[in-house]
Amino acid sequence: MRDGERELIRSIRKRASAASSKSLALHTGIGDDCAVLNLSSKEEMLVTTDLFLEGVHFRRGWQTAHVAGQMCLTRGLSDIAAMGGRPVAVFLSLACPKGTSRRWISAFVGGVTELGEHYGAPLAGGDTAAAPEKIIADIVVIGAAPKGEAVLRSGAKSGDRIYVTGTLGGARAELSRLLATKAKAEVRCALPQPQLEAGQKLRGVASAMIDTSDGLSVDLAHICEESRVSAIIEATQIPIAPSATLEDALHGGEDYQLLFVAPRNRRVPVICYPIGEIVPRRKHLVLLTDGKKAKPLPQLGWQHRI
Amino acid sequence: MRDGERELIRSIRKRASAASSKSLALHTGIGDDCAVLNLSSKEEMLVTTDLFLEGVHFRRGWQTAHVAGQMCLTRGLSDIAAMGGRPVAVFLSLACPKGTSRRWISAFVGGVTELGEHYGAPLAGGDTAAAPEKIIADIVVIGAAPKGEAVLRSGAKSGDRIYVTGTLGGARAELSRLLATKAKAEVRCALPQPQLEAGQKLRGVASAMIDTSDGLSVDLAHICEESRVSAIIEATQIPIAPSATLEDALHGGEDYQLLFVAPRNRRVPVICYPIGEIVPRRKHLVLLTDGKKAKPLPQLGWQHRI
Repeated sequence: MRDGERELIRSIRKRASAASSKSLALHTGIGDDCAVLNLSSKEEMLVTTDLFLEGVHFRRGWQTAHVAGQMCLTRGLSDIAAMGGRPVAVFLSLACPKGTSRRWISAFVGGVTELGEHYGAPLAGGDTAAAPEKIIADIVVIGAAPKGEAVLRSGAKSGDRIYVTGTLGGARAELSRLLATKAKAEVRCALPQPQLEAGQKLRGVASAMIDTSDGLSVDLAHICEESRVSAIIEATQIPIAPSATLEDALHGGEDYQLLFVAPRNRRVPVICYPIGEIVPRRKHLVLLTDGKKAKPLPQLGWQHRI
Repeated sequence: MRDGERELIRSIRKRASAASSKSLALHTGIGDDCAVLNLSSKEEMLVTTDLFLEGVHFRRGWQTAHVAGQMCLTRGLSDIAAMGGRPVAVFLSLACPKGTSRRWISAFVGGVTELGEHYGAPLAGGDTAAAPEKIIADIVVIGAAPKGEAVLRSGAKSGDRIYVTGTLGGARAELSRLLATKAKAEVRCALPQPQLEAGQKLRGVASAMIDTSDGLSVDLAHICEESRVSAIIEATQIPIAPSATLEDALHGGEDYQLLFVAPRNRRVPVICYPIGEIVPRRKHLVLLTDGKKAKPLPQLGWQHRI
């Protein structure tokens, strides 16, 4: 336990040692009570926090430690992308049970830090503890966006077109395959990439945006709820991932694409698929049409996110 | 499980509903992918994150849910105090196992939010999940300090006096009592208060500062390590909490007092106890003297914090 903790601290410190000199924003990183960050006075700060729990969000038998670390941070980076922001710094709270191997810890932290640094956000701090049973991680990403330009969920207007930046259902299809075959996915073939570049290009274009972390049916309902509108999406227009079904694409989470709406005549500067349109608020938040008849689409994805 | 989660979300949303209008800094709180915060251009941002795990940091049999929530946030607020900062916003990631009562969740979140609002930091977001077995919380506090004025651990100079803002060992003595009697501490008598006011008064006065979360022996060693100095403390000068021993005061954590150093002739504007002085770097980081002979003081407190 203590050995594991020491290794964890060493691993995080080593990875983060050069972080403060690499980042203009990061004044003081690991080795003080708080990290000290400086943003430009033209920017506002974005904050997101995501739990990543063994047995809930990942399994040691399914993902390598390095891939698990990348998955963990992808959750947070995707939230920054969904606001049109740039990531600035990453904080990792990690608790490991007795007996967790040094190799696993080091590879997990490596997955987090390498992905963070790839997108310009060094590991700047966190906390460690002994876990009673399973590995517990909580990832915090601090980001920045020009003042007043962060894209919220609440700006969708009736008549806006609805778009998604990539195929959906891939993560759920893979989960089904893993559950069915009990296979060990040493390398996850299609690790989702957080859509940070697309998100930044959509600032000033998208009237509302969210990432598809909980599933299309749930995430689109969030936009509708916050914007006080409803949405009609067309079954034939939804981009379904290879090996996934329409059900997977409608209700599967963790694809980390961007789901956004923009005025009908607005040119959209990223590769994306139009999947429907925003309508005035109705009884149901989201409707699915086959081209003839629109039916209410229930929210069947994960709904635990706040 | 799902019921517990819904209740959690409802509880957090309700508590945080008025947060964005209450706080000048908080633009967009719960209900979007990220919280959006605005600081004055004269300030820099402080970030701290702390795990708070059932069975490691608290027990449901020992603390009421409300007190546990307060303890959880105190960890983070105390880190902000140790930088001389003011807290701006709080983020709570909380995972509860199946069967956690609504009442417990609501009281825990209440403990967090009431304490945060008392110090001007509303609950601005977080994450929820199902926990496999025990309650898992991770608390993030965002703070602010005037640019360049945050008090670091690294500024201690030889000749500086060492001070602590209150008595030490109280939390460890209470823990020993609880372990011995197996009593249920329905109301924890001496819930530590984060020393935010004192911390802010010490900006420009203290040359280095830390909070006593891991214990005097460990926390003073952190200052020495970061400042490349050593410290000699006097056993007779250490303020020992009622019912605690010198051992408790030297090595017990979670008292959340401020431990700081300041130039010898500098008037210190807070109530505090002088306990020793900073000396040039020696073989051992911290020495304890009885007035005659100085002996190395081992670091026996918690060392897991990064």
